[in-house]
Amino acid sequence: MPIEALVFDAYGTLFDVHSVIERCEELWPGKGAAISRLWRAKQLEYTWLRSLMHRYENFETITADALRHACATQQLGCDETHVAELMRAYRQLQTFAEVKSVLAARKDRKRAILSNGSPGMLNPLVEASGLAGEFDAVISVDALGAYKPDPRVYQLAVDALGIEAGRIRFVSSNCWDACGAQSFGFDAWWINRSGAPMDPLGARPAQIVSTLADLPA
Amino acid sequence: MPIEALVFDAYGTLFDVHSVIERCEELWPGKGAAISRLWRAKQLEYTWLRSLMHRYENFETITADALRHACATQQLGCDETHVAELMRAYRQLQTFAEVKSVLAARKDRKRAILSNGSPGMLNPLVEASGLAGEFDAVISVDALGAYKPDPRVYQLAVDALGIEAGRIRFVSSNCWDACGAQSFGFDAWWINRSGAPMDPLGARPAQIVSTLADLPA
Repeated sequence: MPIEALVFDAYGTLFDVHSVIERCEELWPGKGAAISRLWRAKQLEYTWLRSLMHRYENFETITADALRHACATQQLGCDETHVAELMRAYRQLQTFAEVKSVLAARKDRKRAILSNGSPGMLNPLVEASGLAGEFDAVISVDALGAYKPDPRVYQLAVDALGIEAGRIRFVSSNCWDACGAQSFGFDAWWINRSGAPMDPLGARPAQIVSTLADLPA
Repeated sequence: MPIEALVFDAYGTLFDVHSVIERCEELWPGKGAAISRLWRAKQLEYTWLRSLMHRYENFETITADALRHACATQQLGCDETHVAELMRAYRQLQTFAEVKSVLAARKDRKRAILSNGSPGMLNPLVEASGLAGEFDAVISVDALGAYKPDPRVYQLAVDALGIEAGRIRFVSSNCWDACGAQSFGFDAWWINRSGAPMDPLGARPAQIVSTLADLPA
């Protein structure tokens, strides 16, 4: 089936969270990597748990909650100045090096973002990157009130673009997100930047590549 | 509202997974703690993701999948002999020291287990513990095909015991499980054995204590 649209995950796929990790290391010397890892793990965990519990909170709240919890687990101080500073860093992430050229070379197809990020996090980030004009839609799960990989999240992109699932290529650096998208019915590509092993989730991504530059033109 | 039944989580609440962690250390010297931690994290992650994706697999399959993934992440060999041995250890866990007396002292109330474990894992474990006679019901999520903290899981206990949610005290050492149970409508007690910080999930457990012996008689 011909692909009519490319839909990208945001964090870790288009936008590199490396700068946030560096700032964690500056705030908590020697503990930056541990805090970042715990923070990310709790952030995702809370999205899944709250979706299952039907207790949605937006991604900004969850991300801040997860940071506070990560610091508490490590018995490190985390005042609201730290939280505000790291949440600001989240709205100013750099894109990966290949993003601009990859998007520019695919202007013949619709291009969109589908992200867990709340509009208050996502829209300033896309604006700051200078890439806002490249996207036909920037879609947040927030309107739905549930997180990936709930199939209803992927349906948001179908509805926003008016293109059936089988004609949408979904691109994510998160294996579980690519699995969820493939399970839903997208042609899902996993950008496996770190060479991680596959998560066995009952639906394998259609393709696995190393960077966005490996996407077919 | 008077409490008419006590419903317990199994793994980590009644049954101590410590022996499995020790066996990991024997199989992968110096890496046992890392493997155990990753294994547990992936095990839970897969239950949440598959529930959200509507791609249920039973807990035995998920637990083995998570072990293989943990070893692959650590680049450690894991053949099917290792998997079978550790899955066997999972069916022979010791109960925590206080379990027997806590159950015996509460014979005036209905007592049940509500677990993610599949019947093939859970029933042999309860049998081996010698406590089978103490429970009015051993309830697995397997019949439903979704995992905690989906509210429909907690409803299984209401249906099996014929007691309304507000009259059921649910007991778990997993904070997120206690939050899910409280969110559903149980009187949920979190057994916080390790002094971990609370996970903010929109519903706080009714009580937080250190061991099962702290439950009111």
